[in-house]
Amino acid sequence: MTDLNIVILAAGKGTRMRSDLPKVLHAIGGTPILHHVINAARKLNPQKIIVVYGFGGEQVQQQTPGEDLVWVLQAEQLGTGHAVQQALPHLPAQGKTLILLGDVPLVDVEACRDMLSQADAHLVVQTFIKDDPTGYGRIVRNAQNQVVAIVEHKDASEAQRALQEVNTGIMAMPNAALKHWLAQLQNNNAQQEYYLTDIIAMSVNEGRAVLPHVVADAWSVTGINSKLDLQQMEREYQHRQALNLMTQGVTLMDAQRIDIRGHLNCGRDVRIDVNCVFEGEVTLEDGVDVGPNCVIKNAVIARNTTLAAFTHIEEARVGQDSKVGPFARLRPGTHLAAETHVGNFVELKNASVGLGSKVNHLSYVGDATVGANVNIGAGTITCNYDGANKHQTVIEDDVFVGSDSQLVAPVTIGKGATIAAGSTITKDVPAETLTLCRAREQRSIQGWKRPQKVKK
Amino acid sequence: MTDLNIVILAAGKGTRMRSDLPKVLHAIGGTPILHHVINAARKLNPQKIIVVYGFGGEQVQQQTPGEDLVWVLQAEQLGTGHAVQQALPHLPAQGKTLILLGDVPLVDVEACRDMLSQADAHLVVQTFIKDDPTGYGRIVRNAQNQVVAIVEHKDASEAQRALQEVNTGIMAMPNAALKHWLAQLQNNNAQQEYYLTDIIAMSVNEGRAVLPHVVADAWSVTGINSKLDLQQMEREYQHRQALNLMTQGVTLMDAQRIDIRGHLNCGRDVRIDVNCVFEGEVTLEDGVDVGPNCVIKNAVIARNTTLAAFTHIEEARVGQDSKVGPFARLRPGTHLAAETHVGNFVELKNASVGLGSKVNHLSYVGDATVGANVNIGAGTITCNYDGANKHQTVIEDDVFVGSDSQLVAPVTIGKGATIAAGSTITKDVPAETLTLCRAREQRSIQGWKRPQKVKK
Amino acid sequence: MTDLNIVILAAGKGTRMRSDLPKVLHAIGGTPILHHVINAARKLNPQKIIVVYGFGGEQVQQQTPGEDLVWVLQAEQLGTGHAVQQALPHLPAQGKTLILLGDVPLVDVEACRDMLSQADAHLVVQTFIKDDPTGYGRIVRNAQNQVVAIVEHKDASEAQRALQEVNTGIMAMPNAALKHWLAQLQNNNAQQEYYLTDIIAMSVNEGRAVLPHVVADAWSVTGINSKLDLQQMEREYQHRQALNLMTQGVTLMDAQRIDIRGHLNCGRDVRIDVNCVFEGEVTLEDGVDVGPNCVIKNAVIARNTTLAAFTHIEEARVGQDSKVGPFARLRPGTHLAAETHVGNFVELKNASVGLGSKVNHLSYVGDATVGANVNIGAGTITCNYDGANKHQTVIEDDVFVGSDSQLVAPVTIGKGATIAAGSTITKDVPAETLTLCRAREQRSIQGWKRPQKVKK
Repeated sequence: MTDLNIVILAAGKGTRMRSDLPKVLHAIGGTPILHHVINAARKLNPQKIIVVYGFGGEQVQQQTPGEDLVWVLQAEQLGTGHAVQQALPHLPAQGKTLILLGDVPLVDVEACRDMLSQADAHLVVQTFIKDDPTGYGRIVRNAQNQVVAIVEHKDASEAQRALQEVNTGIMAMPNAALKHWLAQLQNNNAQQEYYLTDIIAMSVNEGRAVLPHVVADAWSVTGINSKLDLQQMEREYQHRQALNLMTQGVTLMDAQRIDIRGHLNCGRDVRIDVNCVFEGEVTLEDGVDVGPNCVIKNAVIARNTTLAAFTHIEEARVGQDSKVGPFARLRPGTHLAAETHVGNFVELKNASVGLGSKVNHLSYVGDATVGANVNIGAGTITCNYDGANKHQTVIEDDVFVGSDSQLVAPVTIGKGATIAAGSTITKDVPAETLTLCRAREQRSIQGWKRPQKVKK
Repeated sequence: MTDLNIVILAAGKGTRMRSDLPKVLHAIGGTPILHHVINAARKLNPQKIIVVYGFGGEQVQQQTPGEDLVWVLQAEQLGTGHAVQQALPHLPAQGKTLILLGDVPLVDVEACRDMLSQADAHLVVQTFIKDDPTGYGRIVRNAQNQVVAIVEHKDASEAQRALQEVNTGIMAMPNAALKHWLAQLQNNNAQQEYYLTDIIAMSVNEGRAVLPHVVADAWSVTGINSKLDLQQMEREYQHRQALNLMTQGVTLMDAQRIDIRGHLNCGRDVRIDVNCVFEGEVTLEDGVDVGPNCVIKNAVIARNTTLAAFTHIEEARVGQDSKVGPFARLRPGTHLAAETHVGNFVELKNASVGLGSKVNHLSYVGDATVGANVNIGAGTITCNYDGANKHQTVIEDDVFVGSDSQLVAPVTIGKGATIAAGSTITKDVPAETLTLCRAREQRSIQGWKRPQKVKK
Repeated sequence: MTDLNIVILAAGKGTRMRSDLPKVLHAIGGTPILHHVINAARKLNPQKIIVVYGFGGEQVQQQTPGEDLVWVLQAEQLGTGHAVQQALPHLPAQGKTLILLGDVPLVDVEACRDMLSQADAHLVVQTFIKDDPTGYGRIVRNAQNQVVAIVEHKDASEAQRALQEVNTGIMAMPNAALKHWLAQLQNNNAQQEYYLTDIIAMSVNEGRAVLPHVVADAWSVTGINSKLDLQQMEREYQHRQALNLMTQGVTLMDAQRIDIRGHLNCGRDVRIDVNCVFEGEVTLEDGVDVGPNCVIKNAVIARNTTLAAFTHIEEARVGQDSKVGPFARLRPGTHLAAETHVGNFVELKNASVGLGSKVNHLSYVGDATVGANVNIGAGTITCNYDGANKHQTVIEDDVFVGSDSQLVAPVTIGKGATIAAGSTITKDVPAETLTLCRAREQRSIQGWKRPQKVKK
């Protein structure tokens, strides 16, 4: 909307979070609360998003990139009206403004859009019907169903306390009216604060109708003030993501036991077992099967690949028709081609593995290029670090690395070579050879006595 | 029941599953939905079970073994009545028929048995009382509490919509009547489909009472049409299994966090910690303790054995008084005798381990026979694969294998032998010897300078 | 309270637990049910706590230490009145007594304190308002709101069955009255048992008011009689602990997926991911981050340390600013200094690791002292066990251990030494040297043919 600006109130201290981190930087689904609000705001295509910050504001600003953001300091906590006053210099004379709350991450964008369709001429107040409205500001309507007042719980008459419609704090209004009203705001109340809700009375007194806009989704108006709130919102957020996945056709073994902290893109016929955690951008292509207890961050898993239980992946790509895990760890920079196998207690880092190759048992392959059709035996270790620098290991196609070999980088194992078990390979290995570097002689000492248990 | 046949309607496309797998092959508790229905049907000892299949039917048939099954194709989706018509040639003139639904896995067998006791003379319709019956076909009863009609929601009067008793789709009736009615079925409705429920009106019109049979368990009449349905049914199924286990005396740390996909047989005083997954046939004998996050498939764990956290077992047996895990993996063909220890980051495959033997740390033992009272040191690897064939390792009783040894199969380590740490054993080792195969000479180079970090 | 004694009724057989373990020894939050009751009792500072035990009593006694406990055997199960009679010899003539139930672990201490304030002169009966009181003994009050009777469900009139206030079994009374009443107790009822509740009628008959004390918390009056009860109580107990943690400011990713079996002490800005299990005494200092699926027992994790997914810790200390896991196991006696790194598939046992040292991959370090600034390469193994005795490995500051080395203890690696990859170190290593013990010669055999797959 070309004439829209959005003000986000994000200056609250959040004392009840009992944290050194500013409240609005606590995460829901891996994304700070404030970023959820900003992302929602952006869907309305405003001219500017003005964030009113306070306590810890510099940290908030640093961690919240965006050229469309205007940062305004509310140096003192003098109320919501005062907060919006700080944003006034950034609002044009014409157009309209939407006020959002920096600690309400699941704000309903469509409801805001509806509100804004009336906000060219009116103050529009978002409201919610609460089963138990105790403690909340009640919406008092007139016979025309217009808002005539918001009455705080403590000031409400018995009849007013029976009202279940409450203020959510989200509003929209014409800029001209907003500027006009805020200029008159006073703080002659017990807390000596400037309340934004006072503009409702102003509008009514001026004979301008204040319109209510009821939203139905309780979570869309729920703010976060404590770690308990945070946890409940986190679970609701995860629940919604699980529902989305299932609606798309993903098979979840337990919708209560999946955590998605970022975006999870799933193809057709994907199955995800219990207790998996996804972070960042993760893509699971058609037919991918994820076993229980996997932890996967920023990864692409190509089609028909199986990740067995306890697979841990970060910044990696796995080709199609592959098998990874259980107990496998793919660290950043791992690229597995199609039809690869990575088995238990194997760590890969900054390594590419070619078509059909296997690293099935207890190995560390780091800073390596592994060709196609390679078999890396159990206990193989690429010695990539000399204590100062990292070096590359190159294993060409069709190599067979015997168990418990050490490949001391930089080193190249030529195509089709075989490394005998237990070898320490320090020099390049010619193609198509058998290469050994281990003791030649197996000696058996007859009559040797084992140590005896020492009495203590 | 000697005069009973059962028809299972399993031809639905299941478009909302958004899957290439036919709907009835999706699993609940590891077993395809249709198999649950067939297993329930078998408890009634019918002459035949006639499965009416449609989309993807060949795949359904292949994955559903059973000599008592008759497969009937419904080539076109022309309604439930049309579906049953396809089964008619397989129904004898006499006797009775039960119609089950291929996507309702928790069908109530006892309720069906009760229905069948009336179905020699009557059409019996299974019904359910729904709190919110919106969208369902309402059961209209007469003063004698007989069913006089099923009225679809869209056709129902206001009074009828207030009825909460709904049709479940499950029915039983005499074969003669069924054949008689189906012959008259017409498709002169909006969808041009043949509706099985039309036979109710036929029976009523003929003056034959239609009897309702109300079931109380909502899950027993719940069909699966989406991945959300599938997940909800899965959790209900798992919940029931957890309740059964607890009733038998099993201690579950969290009944919401256990998954049993097959059969879990538990002895007395078994404890199962959080987040375990059991697949296939698993037996946990008296006093077995399963730690958190274990994944166990087709295994027998003998009494008083402890499986620590993150134990992964497949097709294996563990003897009594043993300790396995954490982070242990027993692959197919592993047989541990009593009083064995298998520790962290150890993989066993196709290996037997004798009484009191220990494989405690970071080892791979595959294709091996390990005797009693053997100690396998950390980092030991059986090199069982030469790139083409698998070979056996035999470790006789009382052997001590030093750490980080490689046993290059085929090889036998004689009784009581000791293998020095770091040895590569390529030849058989005589009993009661100390055997080494490693570099003899430890050299220290004075004044050696470590590599320096290269600036990039 | 100087004149208070507490009697805990713990003689029930607990047949429905289907266990060889006495019912009151089953654990909630890792602590036996009876211990919860005793701990609650102790908060009231009684003179003595008299535990009436029965079946399996010796085992109960052995596992329940405490000099303030008096153990009284109820040899036969003759009712609750009979049970209290066994305790009479230990109650002084004066003062008052509180009767608690050994299978009600979450007893409300403050409610008991309130009851006791009236129990110098009166029998006080703890009651509870139950939505569905079916099966419970109803509290019948008079116009003065005094208890005039407890009527068992089966004996209750229709009007009485409508009463929702029920007996919890917890009572308090003056000792003199208790002794007086118990002397009159009879067993002329169907079960031929002596019912403690009969003393209510006695008190009423004597014209002494019986006072009700209603408690609101259902869990505080819930007894455990089956594994289902046990599991439900376990989850409630865990839920309460999760709420406590969140109130203190701990970030929990899922309050339904955390298990604390003992005490978990958390500093500021601690985050705990899903599915973690804590046992015994665990301290997480400020800024500690615990990844998903960790299992931690009796440990102190210093500030700003990160435990990645699948970390398993037992009886260990981790210094500040360290990184442990994923897939790391710290066994008893592990002490990591600050800024240490322990990575995947690494096992530490009885080992201290100095400032800034790293053991990042697939290693076993046991019975070792590792200095500061040490790098232990992948696949390193301390060979601490010779088959009979454990020996120490000492690795001094600034050592670099190359990958896949074996350190055969007892052995000392001098300050600043470098061990070449693949070495078997059997003798002490001088400081500041490069030390090798491996085959010198790398041989390549041209024209070697790999084994061919044998047809079977």
